[in-house]
Amino acid sequence: MNKVAILGPGLLGGSIALALRARGIFVSIWARRQGSADEAMEGGFADEASTSLAQVVREAEIVVLCTPIEAMPGLARELVALLPAGCVITDVGSVKATVVTALTAIFEQAYFVGSHPMAGSEQTGMKAARADLFSGTVCIVTPNADSNPAAVALVSSFWEMLGCSVRELTPEMHDAHVAMISHFPHLLAASLVDMISEQNPAALEFCGPGFRDTTRVASGSPALWTGILLSNRDALRKSTEAMIEKLREILTLLDSQYPDQVMHEFLTQSKALRDSLRLPR
Amino acid sequence: MNKVAILGPGLLGGSIALALRARGIFVSIWARRQGSADEAMEGGFADEASTSLAQVVREAEIVVLCTPIEAMPGLARELVALLPAGCVITDVGSVKATVVTALTAIFEQAYFVGSHPMAGSEQTGMKAARADLFSGTVCIVTPNADSNPAAVALVSSFWEMLGCSVRELTPEMHDAHVAMISHFPHLLAASLVDMISEQNPAALEFCGPGFRDTTRVASGSPALWTGILLSNRDALRKSTEAMIEKLREILTLLDSQYPDQVMHEFLTQSKALRDSLRLPR
Repeated sequence: MNKVAILGPGLLGGSIALALRARGIFVSIWARRQGSADEAMEGGFADEASTSLAQVVREAEIVVLCTPIEAMPGLARELVALLPAGCVITDVGSVKATVVTALTAIFEQAYFVGSHPMAGSEQTGMKAARADLFSGTVCIVTPNADSNPAAVALVSSFWEMLGCSVRELTPEMHDAHVAMISHFPHLLAASLVDMISEQNPAALEFCGPGFRDTTRVASGSPALWTGILLSNRDALRKSTEAMIEKLREILTLLDSQYPDQVMHEFLTQSKALRDSLRLPR
Repeated sequence: MNKVAILGPGLLGGSIALALRARGIFVSIWARRQGSADEAMEGGFADEASTSLAQVVREAEIVVLCTPIEAMPGLARELVALLPAGCVITDVGSVKATVVTALTAIFEQAYFVGSHPMAGSEQTGMKAARADLFSGTVCIVTPNADSNPAAVALVSSFWEMLGCSVRELTPEMHDAHVAMISHFPHLLAASLVDMISEQNPAALEFCGPGFRDTTRVASGSPALWTGILLSNRDALRKSTEAMIEKLREILTLLDSQYPDQVMHEFLTQSKALRDSLRLPR
């Protein structure tokens, strides 16, 4: 791989850039503002950084869209006429069905394959970027019926090179799964903070490490997550309804006359399940 | 402080022991089984370790009960006749109203003051202990009308010495607050794992760092947490009902025709709240 173009130097774009440069690959970064392009150069994130899409994608073998998902279709429309022949495009959006449908239509003849690396942080921006952000994480690659098999293979090997285990899912299956393990937990963490601030704000003065970790994702970017959550509304509605149902079961458990055994079984089962998961370090 | 007796060498007892020894204080550990007492000695947790309560508490200035809360009343009844004059007793139980009422009645003339350091881990046992577990955390001290002021002051300075900020609450207020920021979040994390395993177990193969942190506490000890949760049932019932109500509001938000602004405000408010909290590193 000779040159990779990264469009949008945030946490993910910046981390991809660092990981690629550590592997000796030429990185070109596109930023909307000249100030961000300058920062990318000064911070050692790129071999080249510019606000000119044409310059950044020239001779690139892979173009990675790392902007918020709302900005992707507009950027794709500017990009499509500038792409070198054979260039493969991917993205890092947290929602796939709407993104893949929109971008596949725009790129038409070009080779677009959606991706979602399950890595990140509640922090945002290049300053939080790390070369090892992807190491040991899962990256979901989401081809559809229109995808070129060679492009899918290239995108998969791109993420493997950065340290990910790659799994393929359809865009729709991706959204159903990720609603459960990422989007809904984000909404739940924000809801927990909100509920406590309404019911008993004084309790928030006593938080320990459990609360710190349980609610960490609630410190994520509101703008970024508004876009993500509302692009996956149907799946989120299902998760929310299922959680309401689960909490009603908890109420029944708490109200039962001899709850010890039931509570112990419930906690044992949840612990066993969680302990069995392959989680990033 | 010349000698501290620690009853029960688990994660908390072991961490207190390490922190005290690092400060040059003589630590005596009581364990129910000889094997644990031997481990405590071999692991460098204690200057003295024994299955004899009489030996361990002899000449102790402070006795710290570090067993699961269910075991505390039985242990207290054995202990009460063995205490040196003027010795102060505290505990590390995560629930306070029931514990403080039971132990105050048992200790009568002796100086008991309840404590709850907001520190811990999903791991258990001496092996997970760390000398700096309490550094930068909050410890809630819970005197009641029967508490001796000098004993309260001694217990507070004991926790401050270990690196905690000490706050006083009544046992009842403690339980109401801690239900919100610790007990209910534990139940919520276990419920999230359980809900996903019922609705979409395949999604659990794709978990990233967000899910890892959101559900970390669900890997805690089922036996320990059954005792804690069921000792604080009334407060947990309130938190669970309030969370069901909050998730119903989320459904309304998701179903609204123009949810962007409302979602953005909701996430912005939760983020601002969480970012304003003093959390342990």
